[in-house]
This record gives sequence, C-alpha cells and structure tokens, in this order.
Amino acid sequence: MTDFSFSLTHIDGTARRGRMDISRGEINTPAFMPVGTVGTVKAMYPEQVRDTGADILLGNTYHLMLRPGAERVAALGGLHVFMDWARPILTDSGGFQVMSLAKLRKLTEKGVTFRSHIDGSAHELTPERSIEIQTLLDSDIIMQLDECIPLPSERKEMERAMELSLRWAQRSKDAFGHQPHRALFGIVQGGDDPELRSRSAAGLKSIGFDGYAVGGLAVGEPQEVMFRVLSEITPDLPTDKPRYLMGVGKPDDILGGIERGIDMFDCVHPTRAGRHGHAYTRFGVINLKNARHRDDPRPLDEASPNPNCRRFSRAYLHHLVRTEEILGAMILSQINLSYYQELCIGARAAIEAGTMSDYAQATRARWAQGDLPPIEGN
Amino acid sequence: MTDFSFSLTHIDGTARRGRMDISRGEINTPAFMPVGTVGTVKAMYPEQVRDTGADILLGNTYHLMLRPGAERVAALGGLHVFMDWARPILTDSGGFQVMSLAKLRKLTEKGVTFRSHIDGSAHELTPERSIEIQTLLDSDIIMQLDECIPLPSERKEMERAMELSLRWAQRSKDAFGHQPHRALFGIVQGGDDPELRSRSAAGLKSIGFDGYAVGGLAVGEPQEVMFRVLSEITPDLPTDKPRYLMGVGKPDDILGGIERGIDMFDCVHPTRAGRHGHAYTRFGVINLKNARHRDDPRPLDEASPNPNCRRFSRAYLHHLVRTEEILGAMILSQINLSYYQELCIGARAAIEAGTMSDYAQATRARWAQGDLPPIEGN
Repeated sequence: MTDFSFSLTHIDGTARRGRMDISRGEINTPAFMPVGTVGTVKAMYPEQVRDTGADILLGNTYHLMLRPGAERVAALGGLHVFMDWARPILTDSGGFQVMSLAKLRKLTEKGVTFRSHIDGSAHELTPERSIEIQTLLDSDIIMQLDECIPLPSERKEMERAMELSLRWAQRSKDAFGHQPHRALFGIVQGGDDPELRSRSAAGLKSIGFDGYAVGGLAVGEPQEVMFRVLSEITPDLPTDKPRYLMGVGKPDDILGGIERGIDMFDCVHPTRAGRHGHAYTRFGVINLKNARHRDDPRPLDEASPNPNCRRFSRAYLHHLVRTEEILGAMILSQINLSYYQELCIGARAAIEAGTMSDYAQATRARWAQGDLPPIEGN
Repeated sequence: MTDFSFSLTHIDGTARRGRMDISRGEINTPAFMPVGTVGTVKAMYPEQVRDTGADILLGNTYHLMLRPGAERVAALGGLHVFMDWARPILTDSGGFQVMSLAKLRKLTEKGVTFRSHIDGSAHELTPERSIEIQTLLDSDIIMQLDECIPLPSERKEMERAMELSLRWAQRSKDAFGHQPHRALFGIVQGGDDPELRSRSAAGLKSIGFDGYAVGGLAVGEPQEVMFRVLSEITPDLPTDKPRYLMGVGKPDDILGGIERGIDMFDCVHPTRAGRHGHAYTRFGVINLKNARHRDDPRPLDEASPNPNCRRFSRAYLHHLVRTEEILGAMILSQINLSYYQELCIGARAAIEAGTMSDYAQATRARWAQGDLPPIEGN
C-alpha cells in the first residue's frame, strides 16, 4: 500500500500544479471530483466517468449511511468494489447533508442526531462515527466532521460553529489514528470573517492534517465574497498540503479557485445541470431546451476533444431534452463532466507553462463571447 | 445501394435461419429489434445497443411524426443521422400507437384523424402519408398502415378491420412505388380467426410485399391463442420472404415464435422491464427490488457473456433500483437487450446445427429452474 503523499510540482502566481499519490492511483491537481452521491455518478457508468479524465470521485457519507448503510457496504467489499470504481474516492463527513437534508436535527457538543429524510429512522453522527463510517466505506481521503452554517450569519454564530468544528477536528484526528494509506483532511470554517478563518486554520495546523479543506463557502454568498475569503485564507494554509474547496462550483468558480491556489473541487452542478438540459462547453453554458436549437444540425462544439460534443446535433440534444429521454441526461452529464475535466487539464498545462493568467483570460473571453450565433431562419 | 434481399440459409422443423441484406448492413434472423421509440433506445447509447448484438432498430412513426416531426428529421439528414445509428431501421406505420395513445380518433376509409396525446394538435394518418413519413425518416424497412383491433373481438369487426387493412395494403404498395433499396412489409390481420387470417395472407401475397408481418397479436389474448394463430398462418406465407411478429414479446414468446417460423420480433418489454428493476437472464426474470438481493455479493450471472451481468453485485443493482438511480435503468436495459440477443444468437446456432428443439427445451428448463438460491442468512 502506498502511503498518501502530495507533491507540488509547479507554481504560477498563486496557482498550483501538483500530484497526490495513494494506493489506488495518482490524482493530478488542480482536480475536479465528480460526485457519486449514493454510489453512482448519476447517469454515468464508472468507466465513462474515468474516460472524462477524473482521477478521483466523491462519495456522500450521509446518503450512503442511510442507503445502503456503511456496514453493508463494508460487508460487500467497500465502496470501490460496490460501485466498480477502482481509483481513489474522497468521502465527505456527512455533516453538510445532515444540515441540509435531514429532519429533526439536534446538534450538541457530542455530535448531531437526526432523522432520515427517506424513512424517518433515527441516526447519530459524531466525529468518531463519521470516521468509522468513512473507514467502513474504505474511503481514500476522509473528511473531519464539521458544522457548516449559511452565509450571511452573525459573527457570534460563525465563531461558535468554527470553534465546535475545531474541537471536532481534534476528535476526528484522534479517531482516525494511524492510517498512512488513507488521508485525513481538516476543514477551515469561520464564515466570511478573516480573523475567524485565520484562527480556524491555525488550530487545524496545530492538530496536523494531510490536507486542508475550505468549508462554509458556496452557501449563499456572492462569488466575490468567496474569492475574498479564499485569497485571505490560503496564505495561512501549509504550502506542502493539498487544499480543497468544498462543494464548488460552476466553471468560473473553479477557474477563480485555481487562480487562488485551490487544488481540489467537487460539485453536483455538472451532472445536475446535465439532467436539466444544460451543457457546459468553451462557449459557456448552453440551454438545450431553447427552441433555437430545434432545427440546428450543428454539434455542440465541433472542435471539442469530447466525441459527444461532435457526434450529436443540437437538434437531437434538444429533442432528447424536450422528450425527457434518459439518453439526454446521459449525454449532457458526460459532456459537462468532460468540460470540467478539460478546464482542469488546461489549467494544469498552463500552470506548468507559467501561462495561467493567459489561460484564465482566454477561457473567460470565450465564455463571455457566448454560444455560436443561431443558424439562419431560427 | 444494395437492393433489399432475404435468403433462408437453414430450416430446422418449422424454425428458420436467414439473412436480410440492405444498404445499411445485414440483418441476421431470427432477429430481435430493440425499440427506439422517439429516436433513442431508452437509456442506451447507440453503440451500446449495437454491442448487445442488434443488427436493426425499430422507430415509431406515431411518436416521431409528433416530435420532432418527420419533415424536421428529414431536414436533419434522416433518422439514422439524427440518432447516430448507421445500421438498418424498421419503422412501424403509426397505426397501432394512434389506436392506443392518441385522442379523439376518427377512422374512415381514407385513414385516421386524431389529436396528439402530447399537445392536442390535429393530425391525419393515411396509408399514403404513413409511407411518406417513413420515407422522410429514411427508414430501411417500411410497414403498411393497418388497423389493429384488440382480442377478443367480434368476427364481424375482425373481418371489417382485416378487409380495410387489405385495401390500405394496396394503397401502401402504390404509394411506396419502386424503391428497391428499401423494403415494404404487408401486415396480416384477422384476429384469432383462421379463415380471416388466411384470406388476409392471400390478399397480401397477391399484392406482393418484401416481407410479411403478423399483426393483431399480443393484444390481450393468451399465449396459446397467439401460438395457434402463428402455427395456422405461417403455412400461408411465402417461404422466401421474412416474417415479422409485431410487438412481441417476453423471451418465451420469442422462443415460441422462432419455433413456429417467425424471423423478426420487436418489443419495448426488455427496456421497460429494465427501467422497472427486472433483469432477464438464463435464470428467467429476476426482480431486483426484492429484499433477497440486498446483501447478495454475487453477480446476476457469473457465466453470462455480458460483462454487466458479471461485474456488478446483485446488492449494488438492488441499491440502484431502490434509490431509482438512472444507472440502474441503464444497466438493466443493457442486460435485458443483451439477453434477448443472446436468445436469438443461440437459436440461430441451434437452427444451423439442426438442434433447435434441444435448444428450446434446455432454455425453458433453465428458466423453469429459476434464479440461484438465496445466499445464506437472507
């Protein structure tokens, strides 16, 4: 078994190009992790996800502990075997979904009790139980349990949640113990308050983690607030450990995050947008429900490296979306995940070449230019 | 362009092994045609459909004339280009779905007027317009418009519909004209009455078609009635033309149809059953919703030639079905279409070897034996 390690190979401004190594395979950073909520990246076979360029998936502890259950997944050989994905998996702690999905939540120093949103059954999640569940799932990168609150919030509330998260960070570290073939990441909290964020980072560093996540963002704040917090917090994080911006985001969030020194991202957005008829390409986002595509024989992007962007006409994709055919969700999920990987692959090459700012500018300029003009008669 | 042709290569009892040739590729018979209702075999990429062994797809004229519209498909290069399926396509006439789906139908000698079940828009389907639509779709095998009535029905009603269908057969033939690179099939009607069926077949033969379909079955009658009608009618059909049993069926219907000299089948059942959590294998039908699979690490069938039957555990498939994940529909649609093709491929080999009756007996015996016993503790 390979011990977890991270090496930073290139720096361009504040953007970073690196690599994580772990038994199940290497992870090139900046990395986008597709989300496989309940043991499947929705509407994709695992090999299709891999073919988009994904080195690692994210699994959701909250969903998996409810269905099929962590002990059951363990008895079946772990999450990798269960879903037939042999490469690395990062699992979240379950805390975020407990707060957003579960019913009758009760938060104490010990942890959080709640009822399942599916069948109302009672559950408890503590820092220790979260680590146990993630270990049962056989996760490669494990997240501490934290408390994530919405923005804006009162400073007092942000401070309380940040300090609780720090105490839970210590308990998570203790529960994790010595498992060098897995990584344990701490999570910086503190809302939009620079001093709280700084104290959170300092506290986590003194505990010591394999990586540092920035939590509590993309929870309702404008993008500029998120970018400000990132710019403020990254200097407080160790340069030799990976940095993970949780639950983010759209392509321009990702690009801005990479520019600010973030190494890892995850978001349901590309697959969810795909199921709703939206395609991400270098032209920005394209709404295939729109009638302008109805008679358009052109592919989404004939210069795309992704065959699905070249082989199907816009008219066909429009038709699949309008008729709510599963194939539409399949194709557009694939197209969006491919584009997210393309964006990261492009950023990696740019950072290596020291041209990240040109890459970001050119990418944003193409987005701003928008889609191809409609064909005549439409 | 290759002219349409059919050659019968082997006969075993009344079972037939043959081959159709047409510009877009050969079609081995007995053939099962997956149904791509609105320009997609649900939850499958076209290449995945081909990989199951399908030589030909079926497209539904009724659905496609409403959405996206036949003229639109033609302007976009035809149905093959539209859905990226380069091999042969058979289209039905639209008549069956008008009767089962459309609103405010009005049948006259001329044809049928109706309102779309989607948006209430008014449409007309005549024998001539059906041929025109199927030609616009660029179909390889075109079906005459007929009137399909349920069973049981009064003899008088069966006779009326059969005679109308015969007159429409002549009009379809006239409208089709001379298009040797396409095939036109007539449809035998007459309900469960041998004399009416015989008259229908004689009438069609005197008009002359490239192939002969048996319509008006699988419309509510027991399997033994369907098999009796097939046994009675096939001696009346030309031996040198393909025979197509429309809208049939489950695996045991197909096997019985092959034994009775049918060359082609189509049915939505395998993909629909897949979307509802049912898997067809040599063990028969398996309901993956059933709790007995919840902790079962075994694959569906470790001896299957289909990788999807070997790589995913029953527990995982159960989980996907229970959580209503799209991947469950994708995998089970693929598994069912693969099994249908496997059944046809096995029948072809058996007919070639003169062992069809052994093959049918062994296949039915394995189905009767049912699924593997549950694992211990379940």
